[in-house]
Amino acid sequence: MEARRRSRAREGTILKARRVPIDSFRENVLLLSRQCTMVRPERLTGTRKVEVRSNGRAILATILIVDDPGLVAQDEAGLAEPAFRRLGVAEGALVEIAPAPRPKGLAAIEAKVSGQTLTDAVLADVVSDLVGYRWSDVEISAFLVACASFMTADETLAFTRAMTEGGTRLDWNTPIVADKHCIGGIPGNRTSLVVVPIVAAHGLTIPKTSSRAITSPAGTADTMEVLARVDLSIDEMRATVDRCGGCIVWGGRVNLSPADDVLISVERRLSIDTPEQMVASILSKKIAAGSTHMVLDVPVGPTAKIRDPHAALRLRKLFEFVAGRLGIALDIVITDGAQPVGRGIGPVLEMRDVLAVLRNETGAPADLREKSIRLAARLLEMDPAVRGGTGEARARELLVSGAALAKLEQIAGSQGAPRRQAVIGSLVAEIRASKSGWVQGIDCLRIARIARTAGAPTDPGAGIELLLKQGDSVRAGDPLYRVYGDDPADFGMAVASGSEEPGYLIG
Amino acid sequence: MEARRRSRAREGTILKARRVPIDSFRENVLLLSRQCTMVRPERLTGTRKVEVRSNGRAILATILIVDDPGLVAQDEAGLAEPAFRRLGVAEGALVEIAPAPRPKGLAAIEAKVSGQTLTDAVLADVVSDLVGYRWSDVEISAFLVACASFMTADETLAFTRAMTEGGTRLDWNTPIVADKHCIGGIPGNRTSLVVVPIVAAHGLTIPKTSSRAITSPAGTADTMEVLARVDLSIDEMRATVDRCGGCIVWGGRVNLSPADDVLISVERRLSIDTPEQMVASILSKKIAAGSTHMVLDVPVGPTAKIRDPHAALRLRKLFEFVAGRLGIALDIVITDGAQPVGRGIGPVLEMRDVLAVLRNETGAPADLREKSIRLAARLLEMDPAVRGGTGEARARELLVSGAALAKLEQIAGSQGAPRRQAVIGSLVAEIRASKSGWVQGIDCLRIARIARTAGAPTDPGAGIELLLKQGDSVRAGDPLYRVYGDDPADFGMAVASGSEEPGYLIG
Repeated sequence: MEARRRSRAREGTILKARRVPIDSFRENVLLLSRQCTMVRPERLTGTRKVEVRSNGRAILATILIVDDPGLVAQDEAGLAEPAFRRLGVAEGALVEIAPAPRPKGLAAIEAKVSGQTLTDAVLADVVSDLVGYRWSDVEISAFLVACASFMTADETLAFTRAMTEGGTRLDWNTPIVADKHCIGGIPGNRTSLVVVPIVAAHGLTIPKTSSRAITSPAGTADTMEVLARVDLSIDEMRATVDRCGGCIVWGGRVNLSPADDVLISVERRLSIDTPEQMVASILSKKIAAGSTHMVLDVPVGPTAKIRDPHAALRLRKLFEFVAGRLGIALDIVITDGAQPVGRGIGPVLEMRDVLAVLRNETGAPADLREKSIRLAARLLEMDPAVRGGTGEARARELLVSGAALAKLEQIAGSQGAPRRQAVIGSLVAEIRASKSGWVQGIDCLRIARIARTAGAPTDPGAGIELLLKQGDSVRAGDPLYRVYGDDPADFGMAVASGSEEPGYLIG
Repeated sequence: MEARRRSRAREGTILKARRVPIDSFRENVLLLSRQCTMVRPERLTGTRKVEVRSNGRAILATILIVDDPGLVAQDEAGLAEPAFRRLGVAEGALVEIAPAPRPKGLAAIEAKVSGQTLTDAVLADVVSDLVGYRWSDVEISAFLVACASFMTADETLAFTRAMTEGGTRLDWNTPIVADKHCIGGIPGNRTSLVVVPIVAAHGLTIPKTSSRAITSPAGTADTMEVLARVDLSIDEMRATVDRCGGCIVWGGRVNLSPADDVLISVERRLSIDTPEQMVASILSKKIAAGSTHMVLDVPVGPTAKIRDPHAALRLRKLFEFVAGRLGIALDIVITDGAQPVGRGIGPVLEMRDVLAVLRNETGAPADLREKSIRLAARLLEMDPAVRGGTGEARARELLVSGAALAKLEQIAGSQGAPRRQAVIGSLVAEIRASKSGWVQGIDCLRIARIARTAGAPTDPGAGIELLLKQGDSVRAGDPLYRVYGDDPADFGMAVASGSEEPGYLIG
């Protein structure tokens, strides 16, 4: 009898689920009444994490205390989005609340802080916790910073492997599954939208999953969405690849390396981007996507993610070590990251550049065209049927002949029409040079921030059109770029910001 | 005209303040409608921090999105507690929302992660940001872990100084202001409640500020609250010290080193407790409190915060370095932390031990009495009027004569009666030994956790009464300790937990 009472007490407290119309982004939030008789919330303030269970499902949640019974009554468990969705209960269903058992992987933080290297098993626990949303953002932040202090190549390998295994794994039943990726940071660098059609037109399988912008003015998925639907399910993605040999979809719906998404959401808030996390993030996503052969674009420049050749070399070695152990053929291409690529920045403006290249227009941006050909060539050379040294000629041929354009149109048609028609922004202003000279460099971070302030990618037609690039001569008063937008307040802020500090180095 | 529009846009968006009956603990939370026409919340998800301004005041807040206009309408800015209180506006007042400028001190995180030492100026920026609640918990976590990786003695000194200057500073206009502190971790270690009355009875000024429990079953303030009011204002504290020469109050209302409170709230969630943060935390609070001479109790034991003599020595050196530079006379006493001190754990049970010692009862716990005399003696020896080597005799004399008891009663009378009468828990159960032998050690962490589970300090009468201590012989079935409680569910959980693993090492 006493034993039974004890065990009941340890099982937790029963409350009625209530959906609370609040969106807490990625973290699970549970709202409890301060008058809740069964749980005593003040006791929980030390940890603030509780387990919410129902029908064999369990989530961990952070607590907020509510002082209005109309919002959450004392016998209710208020579940904000996404906690309500993740628990998958009906409103009014009984749920059980209990102090959360300490997630197993958390020991990794203390271990790392005290200077230990982590075993494969511990890193697998970390990934399992992340995928189960069992860590708070505070804990994720601590783990990332502890790993930034030092992480061995073996730890990076083990972590990449565990992340790869922590989500969906795709298999394309073909010996070469090509892929192309960039470590990011360069506005307008939309080479994937040229490379994928070239490679698919050649006949290789290239099922490209890409991301939406998180802090940049456009991700490949955002730009592709100007032309076609990108939020495809796995089955829809397969259908397009079967039909066209390639696709360009948003990876978010496919659940590849979900631990990576969790880590990235905190990393971005800290502006921390270590080589080890970059390797684990990119390779886990690509291997989970079934890629076997990949070309990786690593831009180096004063305002790029990688700022000097030594850092690029170190990053290359780490990528090669992990890729080699995990059996993916990886070719790293160090590229010029001194300025944005192409002229447009923002989804619609970037797609305009991409189509100009594919259509072989005379005014098409040469840097986007030549860089795309170079990257496509490296991928084509991975095909045993291509004679060594002929990759570039083959890539150029597929571009000039219109085969690549036809392929992109086929892929877009297969993926379906985009949900909304995106057109160029209706508001436009020019930012002018304050002195004469030569354009010596363009600040990628500054240009990205102004384009994002203007509304990109939320407004797909917002962004920046660069009128002058490195090496061009300029006179005071000449326009440097145009800012486009649709929302007057955002547009105004972007124009003000660009006028104050345009991001051009003129010497 | 265009310039004016630009500048207006940058000033932000005007919304009506609405108090939302949700308590977000320490972080500021702003709730915005997803339909809010003026702010576009999806744009903010990258940063999630905005500045809320009104009448010259500004706070930074984290955003949650609301999908119910009844909770927050599209022209409203929902302010949860404590954001509403901190901004100090009336409901319906107009507030301005703008993307938060990046706090100046945040550069410290990246600098520390990349291996730099921080300058005094940067550390002062960090403290200023913390005191202004400008950092998110994610950022605080990153900073703490980056500092845990390495922090020089000079950085620790500069950080301590900046923290000291970041809040209220008390001045007692007397050459010796005595203080006594313990680094914590040992349940039942309530020596302050014996030391303060002895030292004050001797005639030294000892205005003791103490903390409430955060993760432990009782802090000195919680235990003192059994006898007297502890949430005194600075003026009330001064009145008691003028009258009695000493006080024992809760430091939380006095705003000493507020940056420390912010750091601690995140540290506890990470179970990180580095020597550097410990030194900065304790010394900044004590110097801000006006202390000039302090005895610091550093318990060492297998389940204490400091587990070996080397770590204790390293900690001592760092304390001495910073204390010396900041001009506070510090005497560090390494003590036995192998088991809890006294018999009671939890506010009422601990106060019972304290009063038994002060009343010279025959059954009073000898370890609490002797440790208190030892610590009091070290403080008394700091008085130039006390002849070297006579501190212990003087301390014992003040205890045995009843002078210390009379002093505690005077202090309690001056501080005022506690808000509620606290009595020992109405539920009681014994935890018994499962084998025979000798008690070789008692797990401080486990005992603390069980006492806290039982309800301490929320229920002041809940906790643990130890019946056997180190060196006692025990036979299987003998009671080891009693668990007290008032809430049946919590009490049941504590008894179950104690039965499963009592926390006694019997050999």
